[in-house]
Amino acid sequence: MNRPAGLTADAASGGDRGTGAPAESFGDRLAEHVARRESQIVLGLDPDPARLWPRAFELAAGSGEGSDPAARAARAVAIHCSLVIAAAGEQCVAVKLQVACFERLGAAGWAALAEVVESARAAGLLVIADAKRGDVDVTAEAYAQAYFGATTTPYGVVPGLDVDALTVSPLLGADSLMPFVRVAREVGGGLFVLARTSNPGAVDVQERPLAEGGSVSERLARLIATLGAGGTGMAGLSDVGAVVGATAPGAVRRMRELMPAAPFLLPGVGAQGGKVEELAAAFSPGRAAGLIAASRGIVFAHEAGAATPEGPESAARREAGRLRELAWSLSG
Amino acid sequence: MNRPAGLTADAASGGDRGTGAPAESFGDRLAEHVARRESQIVLGLDPDPARLWPRAFELAAGSGEGSDPAARAARAVAIHCSLVIAAAGEQCVAVKLQVACFERLGAAGWAALAEVVESARAAGLLVIADAKRGDVDVTAEAYAQAYFGATTTPYGVVPGLDVDALTVSPLLGADSLMPFVRVAREVGGGLFVLARTSNPGAVDVQERPLAEGGSVSERLARLIATLGAGGTGMAGLSDVGAVVGATAPGAVRRMRELMPAAPFLLPGVGAQGGKVEELAAAFSPGRAAGLIAASRGIVFAHEAGAATPEGPESAARREAGRLRELAWSLSG
Repeated sequence: MNRPAGLTADAASGGDRGTGAPAESFGDRLAEHVARRESQIVLGLDPDPARLWPRAFELAAGSGEGSDPAARAARAVAIHCSLVIAAAGEQCVAVKLQVACFERLGAAGWAALAEVVESARAAGLLVIADAKRGDVDVTAEAYAQAYFGATTTPYGVVPGLDVDALTVSPLLGADSLMPFVRVAREVGGGLFVLARTSNPGAVDVQERPLAEGGSVSERLARLIATLGAGGTGMAGLSDVGAVVGATAPGAVRRMRELMPAAPFLLPGVGAQGGKVEELAAAFSPGRAAGLIAASRGIVFAHEAGAATPEGPESAARREAGRLRELAWSLSG
Repeated sequence: MNRPAGLTADAASGGDRGTGAPAESFGDRLAEHVARRESQIVLGLDPDPARLWPRAFELAAGSGEGSDPAARAARAVAIHCSLVIAAAGEQCVAVKLQVACFERLGAAGWAALAEVVESARAAGLLVIADAKRGDVDVTAEAYAQAYFGATTTPYGVVPGLDVDALTVSPLLGADSLMPFVRVAREVGGGLFVLARTSNPGAVDVQERPLAEGGSVSERLARLIATLGAGGTGMAGLSDVGAVVGATAPGAVRRMRELMPAAPFLLPGVGAQGGKVEELAAAFSPGRAAGLIAASRGIVFAHEAGAATPEGPESAARREAGRLRELAWSLSG
């Protein structure tokens, strides 16, 4: 009921990617976007309603959402995200929407998430939903409907969010990932499967050595490569990618050896300590093979340094541009 | 904006569990509920809008939700869940809401989820959100706000869903689980952490032997036991439980050895092949230490067997009652 007017069932079932004809593969769509925009930067949006750009609060004040805190906060969050996209989107190839930050605002937050998907798409950006979903097959199918597909009901088809890619968790094994692969592939969508995350806790499970040799992460990498084998496009990139933290350059190199065709989504640059300069291995299959996700480093660039005071918009654009040039020259 | 009237900020911040005074631990609340209701059965609700009880469609037809398919489907889903709770809830101790099934209906689905939480609570049932969330710490905190806590915004506090327990994924390690433990513990909530799932793909990652000895699942079990050590109540049960598939009785025994105080949520009985009779090990610490989740087996009991035709309500009540007696006598 809160779905924004712009999102029709037709668009949501992948209409603008060519309904009827086989969808262009995610790998090719990604390569084309990266080449056209000359950027591998993913703008991470993880809005905290207590810490939005001041202009978002100003604009939200005039939008008349009544007195419900959830509705008002969700309105401000959606406006904030639109402002960030308008400021820094041109320097980026995609947005990564942190679903948790919308989910905590309930139904109003979910409506705001759908709006931000539309804002990003209107700006020509690919949309990655960072949701890290993962469940048994029948449930994975329901999540795939929520993000890539649609749900058939007696009242008509309910479109999903229609994102370009989704992060998923592989802990439940191959059968839990297959519905995601199938539904995403039908519409030219892609997955980024957790392989080696950017947080310190990655050592607790992912880095453990297996009796058969290699680590849990290395086994996940092989699983990801196998799942993606049937979805490699003309550009040589698969539709099953991997989340590989930018905080462990050695792991990035090893993951690339094991997943030569997987696009890597690389979070952890900036606040978490990852450095773009150390990520060359990610790009070895091609420029679009590595996507550098930056969130707080871009959105709060105006709070860093501050020798010369700068507004959030200008600082975000400058920082996204700096990362873009760094990555582009590294991968050239 | 779609939050149902019954869910006030006060109730949602754990008001009825005694705000101010330290919350009673989840383990004690669970033990008390199981003893009072004489049931260890968890009613799984994973509504498919194309396959609801006929009476739900009839009632939804008169509820005037306009023509939006998502709103109409979400209305029917919420009514269906209320009917199932009314029919079978008395035989159960908790409901397990499969979040994916609501998420695929967007904002309207999220509003329906909040309504069903209220329906279940009104029926005296504990509420387990089966969401299998898991992410880096700052994001885990946002998810914890969504399910157990609340989000502070300049417009006021936005309450979370206020569930009693949440399923979470441990793939990202201990630091990714700590925010869930902290926020849940504050309000007397609990976690069920994936340890050994019920699906065939559990062998792909969870069952792999580690070089240090034991399997990945066994390592997860030790992690779960450690996280739960600080949250064991008077009844001897921790607030950090585990999801252990009912489909592998041997794994249930081993998991119980490694997690003597963890409540087990045991999915996989019925459609997936698990048998209540083989789950005695789960109950060794006490009757509330094992919770048997059944979804389709109860909701679609009227479609099974069918020597004597029976309505969905009566069949669901009978099947939930049968499981209840089976588990209760097994654990006595």
